[in-house]
Parts: sequence; C-alpha cells; structure tokens
Amino acid sequence: MIIELVNTGTELMLGRVLNTHQQWLCRQLADSGYVVSRQVAVPDTGSAILAAVSEALARADIVITTGGLGPTSDDITRELIAGSLGKELREDPDVMAHIRQFFEARNRRMPKSTLVQALIPDGALVLKNPHGTAPGLAIELRPNPFRPGNAGWLIMLPGPPRELRPMFTDSVMPLLRCVLPIASAFVCRTLRATGIGESSVEERVAKPLQELLQDGLQLGYCARPGQVDVRLAAQTSGAEKIVNRAVAIVREKLGVYLYAESDAEIEDTLVSLLSERNETLALAESCTGGYIAHRLTNVPGASSVLLGGLVTYSNRAKEKFLGVRSETLDAHGAVSESVAREMAQGAREAMLSNYALSVTGIAGPSGGSDLKPVGTVFIGLAGHFGCIVERNFNPFDRKTFKEVTAQQAFDLLRRKLLAGI
Amino acid sequence: MIIELVNTGTELMLGRVLNTHQQWLCRQLADSGYVVSRQVAVPDTGSAILAAVSEALARADIVITTGGLGPTSDDITRELIAGSLGKELREDPDVMAHIRQFFEARNRRMPKSTLVQALIPDGALVLKNPHGTAPGLAIELRPNPFRPGNAGWLIMLPGPPRELRPMFTDSVMPLLRCVLPIASAFVCRTLRATGIGESSVEERVAKPLQELLQDGLQLGYCARPGQVDVRLAAQTSGAEKIVNRAVAIVREKLGVYLYAESDAEIEDTLVSLLSERNETLALAESCTGGYIAHRLTNVPGASSVLLGGLVTYSNRAKEKFLGVRSETLDAHGAVSESVAREMAQGAREAMLSNYALSVTGIAGPSGGSDLKPVGTVFIGLAGHFGCIVERNFNPFDRKTFKEVTAQQAFDLLRRKLLAGI
Repeated sequence: MIIELVNTGTELMLGRVLNTHQQWLCRQLADSGYVVSRQVAVPDTGSAILAAVSEALARADIVITTGGLGPTSDDITRELIAGSLGKELREDPDVMAHIRQFFEARNRRMPKSTLVQALIPDGALVLKNPHGTAPGLAIELRPNPFRPGNAGWLIMLPGPPRELRPMFTDSVMPLLRCVLPIASAFVCRTLRATGIGESSVEERVAKPLQELLQDGLQLGYCARPGQVDVRLAAQTSGAEKIVNRAVAIVREKLGVYLYAESDAEIEDTLVSLLSERNETLALAESCTGGYIAHRLTNVPGASSVLLGGLVTYSNRAKEKFLGVRSETLDAHGAVSESVAREMAQGAREAMLSNYALSVTGIAGPSGGSDLKPVGTVFIGLAGHFGCIVERNFNPFDRKTFKEVTAQQAFDLLRRKLLAGI
Repeated sequence: MIIELVNTGTELMLGRVLNTHQQWLCRQLADSGYVVSRQVAVPDTGSAILAAVSEALARADIVITTGGLGPTSDDITRELIAGSLGKELREDPDVMAHIRQFFEARNRRMPKSTLVQALIPDGALVLKNPHGTAPGLAIELRPNPFRPGNAGWLIMLPGPPRELRPMFTDSVMPLLRCVLPIASAFVCRTLRATGIGESSVEERVAKPLQELLQDGLQLGYCARPGQVDVRLAAQTSGAEKIVNRAVAIVREKLGVYLYAESDAEIEDTLVSLLSERNETLALAESCTGGYIAHRLTNVPGASSVLLGGLVTYSNRAKEKFLGVRSETLDAHGAVSESVAREMAQGAREAMLSNYALSVTGIAGPSGGSDLKPVGTVFIGLAGHFGCIVERNFNPFDRKTFKEVTAQQAFDLLRRKLLAGI
C-alpha cells in the first residue's frame, strides 16, 4: 500500500507556519499500518498543486491533500482537482444547509464567499466537518488516470487542525479500513531515554538487536533536546513478537536512562509515577517562566498531582510567595544554589506538597557573567529527605534552554522516585 | 531561482517528530529572497532518498537536504549521495580533529562510530559544525547531471536543529549570497488580527487591495486558533512600495483587530505595550496551567514587565496565594466569574502590579456540567479601573483550549491598553 501526503499552502513555503499536519497525519496513519512513503509541500499555485498531486497519484494508492478548501480566494484546491479529473462541481444542499446553520448557531453573519465550500466534485464522497464549514472530499479513481492499470483514492482535507483532525479520525480512517484494508499489521514502539547521548545509546543496543534485524526488525534513532528516541518497528507476520523481544533488549541495556516505553513525554511518566504513589508536587520557576507547569498541565490528570506553581521572575515574588530570604538573594544572587534550595523548600512548605521542584538560571540572551555564564541553571528538589540542588549548563537559545532545563528537572524527580526515596 | 528542500527521516514518516526544519529553513530563505518552491520528506531508505534528491536536482538550482549525516547506522545520506554523484569519500583531517576535540572538551569518551562523520565527498565544501560533530556539506554540480545544461548546488545539513540553524546562518546563507545572488528583493510582511474570522478579514481587505494585485502584490490568508494572518508580498521592482501601500490599506480596514504588523506573537505586542508604558503585569492561571506565563517569558525582555505568575490548580493555592475566599469557592465553584475576579484582584495586590490577568475554566476532557460545559472559561483583568471578567466558550482539545484562551486573555489586556485605560 503506497500512501503519499500533499500539504498545500504558500505560508508553508514562506516558513510562516509550522506544518503540524504532516506529523499528525503520518502518526495516525502509521499507527493503523498505513505508512506514508512521501510527503510533499507546495505553494497555493495551480501549477504547483496539480504537479504535486498528479505525481503523487502516479505512484500511490492513496493520496491525501491538506488545505485549499476554505472560502478565500487563495483556496483553489477543490476547483483545480475537479478540473484536472474532468469532474463537474455541483452545489450540495446538505453541505449548504450545514454552512448556513453553522453561522446561525454562532449568531454570526455568513459572508457570501463561504458558500463556495458547498461545491462538490461529481461522484465525490462528502466528509462531514462538524467543526467548520469546509467539508472534506474523498474521490475514488477507478481507474486512476495518472497510474494506468491501477485504482486509487484521492482524499482532500481542510487546513485548520481542529477541523482536519476529527474529520480524519471519524471519516477517513473508517473509509480506509473499509476500502483498502491492511494485510499485515505494522507494529511500532518508540522507547525514550534521557541523560545519555545518541551514539552511546547505539553502542549499548545495536549489537544485541542485530539478530532481530534479520527477522524484519526496523531500527531507528532520533536525538532531541535532552532526549534520545529508539524506534522499533516491524511489518511482517510475528511483528508483535519481534518488536516485544526488541523492547526487552533495549529495556535491559538502557536501564534507568529509559523513561518511557512508548513515545510519551517525560511529564507523562512523572504524572503516572506520582499518581501511583498518591503524592503531590509544587513548582517554583524562575528562568523557565511557567514552561514546566505548562508541560505538566498538558497531561490529563495533572490536577491530582500538581498542587500549584509559582513563576517568580522578580525577587519580590521569590520573597513573598516562597519565603526566600533577602539576605540569601543579596549574598548569592537570584541565580544560585542557595536560592534554588530556598525556592524548592519554600514552595513545598507553602503548598504542603510531597515534593517541590525549583529552577533558577540565566536563559539569556543577556544577563550572564564570567562565573555564571548564560545557560547556567540551578535545579532544586525538596522532599521529606531534605533538598538537593543540581547545577547544569545549558548554553542554548531561549526555547531550547527551557526545553532542556525542564527535561533535567523532570528527570531529577523521576530518578529520585524510582530510587524509592 | 528554483530552490527545493528534502527532509530525510523515517521518524518523520511515522509521525514521531515534528518537522521544524521545514518552517525554519523556508523562513530564513524567504526572508533573503530565496523562496522554496517544493519541500519533500522521505524515510531513511536509500531508494527513497536517492529518488527525492535526484528529482529535486532535476528541477532546481539549489537543493538542501536535512538529516542522515549522524553517526548511527540509519544515517546514510552522505554515502548515498557521494555514490550517486560518483564522488569518493575521503577522511578530512580537520573534521577528524574537531570531532576528537568535541568529545575531549566535554570529558566524554568518543564512540568509534562517530568518526564516520569525518568522511567528505571529493570536492565538497565542509560547513563547520561548532555545536556538534557532523559537518554540513555543499557540493557544486557543474554540470548538474540530473538537469542537463544547468549547474546546481546540493547542500546537506545535519538533523539536530541546534546544529543546523547556526550552520545555516553562518555558512549556507553567505555561500548562497556569494554564488547565487538574488536579482530583485523579495518583500514579505505578515499582519496579524485576532477576534475576527478569516472570511470577514477577506471581506474587509480584498477589494481595496485588488488594484495592487495587478502591480505584483501577492496576497494570502491563514487562519489559526484565535488568529488570522494576512500575508502581503511582492518580488518585483518597487516591491517595497507596493507592500507598504498594501500594509496601509490592511491597517485601515482591520483597525483594532490588528495586533501586529509583522508576524510577531500577541505576547510580543503586549510586552512592548507594557514596556513603553513602564507598567507591570501579574498572572493567576488555573486551567491554562502556566501556558500564559510560558508564552510571555518566551519574549526577551519579559522580565521587566512580568512580576510573577501563579498556577493555582488547587483551591488551597487560590486561597493561600491569591486570597480567594473559601465562601466564594463554595458558593460559585472554582470556575466562576467571582473566582476569576478575586484571582485577578488578589494577584494584582500580592505582586503590586499595574495589571493582573486571571483565568479559570474547564479545559477538559472531563469536569464539565450542563451549566458549565467543557470549554467554559472566565478571564479576569484587574487594574486601577477595577476588574472586568469575560466569559468565553472554547470547546476544543486541551492544547487548543490553552492556545485560544491565552490569545483571548492577551487580547483583553491589549485592547484595554490601547483604549488608554
């Protein structure tokens, strides 16, 4: 089964937006055994879209496009594709009614241009859009004019993620399972390690996994800030068994470096660990500015674990909410081991939590000194055992600094929890 | 000038990582007048990489690849491309020394596999990598074997963003400016509006901009959660003037909906507005869980404006840090207008800030009721004028909920500041 993805949008080519569709769709498809073999992005010009779609149809059984179905003048995919396939556009009364009702329910006046979205190419299946006005379209090509001797499906989805995603899950996946079922399941597991580099991970696991490669194991590595992913996949008979054996090997070889046996984030692991133990956490963030709290609160169920967080950018906030002493601030500076310690202890006491993490550092671009250059960070962890403080050096741009520092803070607590403190 | 981008990585096709290179590189290139006309992603298999690169070279003057230069066994781009171009790989002593020194400086043992990164195709320019071990490579194809009668450049960059980005800025851009300078500048401005839909934006601006389209103005729209972008570009003589005239029209037609005349985030606008006024802000977040603080603290200079933030997930934290009364919590519930009000006022008083924003709501997926369904949110703003509370309904997934709610909170304050409160 050959599947290709075509993302349209001039804003993609100008780098004005991030293409989140690519990851999301590839992930959903792969998890069901439909692995995308090529993804292409082109601008919203007729010739570029037509070339990309017809080339993809010449290779693939399924081509999925995103974007270009909206109401504005640069949304041309619907008309263009219908034209190239020689299909008339006709107004669909159901879609028409849905669009009208969509505006009425929101008490908003309907711009006339919106109705162009009710035009459907002859013979296309309409994919409902409960979250917006542009329906998706699925066209069976039997035969596929671009790939003689083959049939194919062209599926066109709207650009906004909150419209595309439910449409894909509720309409496209069931359609694919029905019309183009997968023969042998694709099994894919991602294991995630932190505190260890990519080469060292390979040194530990590559040899022990060698034998399984001959059985059809696919092995990949991916390094990210503060994290290395090991990807284990197979698409043969016995795929499940092969991948399970590989997982067991990686688990043994990476030990405590491994924080998840799925592609969970480290904060997911942490919320699970704390929930299991019925324990709670408080946060006191300076340089990470709420990023650690944000990541934790992305995890459903975080509210039973995280009692609260303080973003104490100013010294005043550190003193008032965390009880950091002004003498400590004066003597050691806000970025210091002592302040990290008082922040963690203060947060734990104020919120009556089992643990508290604190972070104080210099994210940059300015504010560094010889003794404490940009990238210096102190991470504190308070618990019934007292308080430990780690000093790290993360000389990255502001966002990477936040990412790596959060990863280290999460890992500090994770290791302590695993050590059974 | 035709430019194409080829991103390699099986993890991209399996949807395990987000392709941030695409946006970043397209953005950097476009800002210098080099607009990418096609981007392709393929898995780490020899045939897929070779097909994508040779097809791109058959169309383009410049092809940039990312990934596949690392030390692990799935990093095959270097060898593959050298083979297909008939170029020998030779060990480069400078790169070799850099790799050894990289590990020594970090006090880390060097895995042997790392040295494969010192193999350079004959005649390739080495692009230095101060942040990692894999150098980039630039190969001039004169002639370009895939595009008879043309010359071309193939530029290969390593996958990790913090290695790729400085390498691109410091080595690739100067190289392109030198060997393939752009004839007429590309001018591109993005204007951003909030609180208004995409169709309504077009209704206001499309007709007044019509005339400029004939002069070479390129116009695009892009809708995102809580935001509509209007993109105005031109690449002709007089591009600057055309785009400036278009900007003036959009500014007039969108009025207060417009929060930025660049592709800045709304938090950038807010930090500027507050800095200009020498005023300060405090935050009290419940359901957004630190996301508002995180976005504000991504802005360099936020520390002079944001005094602190409180993530008060628990009632206890709301009472203790913000002085929310337990009677209010009992009578109205944590998600209520009254609590939003007390949170904002409490944060303002506790931090002695000019303004305070508060947010309390139900992000879901659970926790809703008939009267307050999932997506309900109260946003409070306290200032010298007293306190206002807005009730909104954002029935989205958890992350979109946070995004839209943050956008609304930022906009509430922005409009108040513009109104000269």
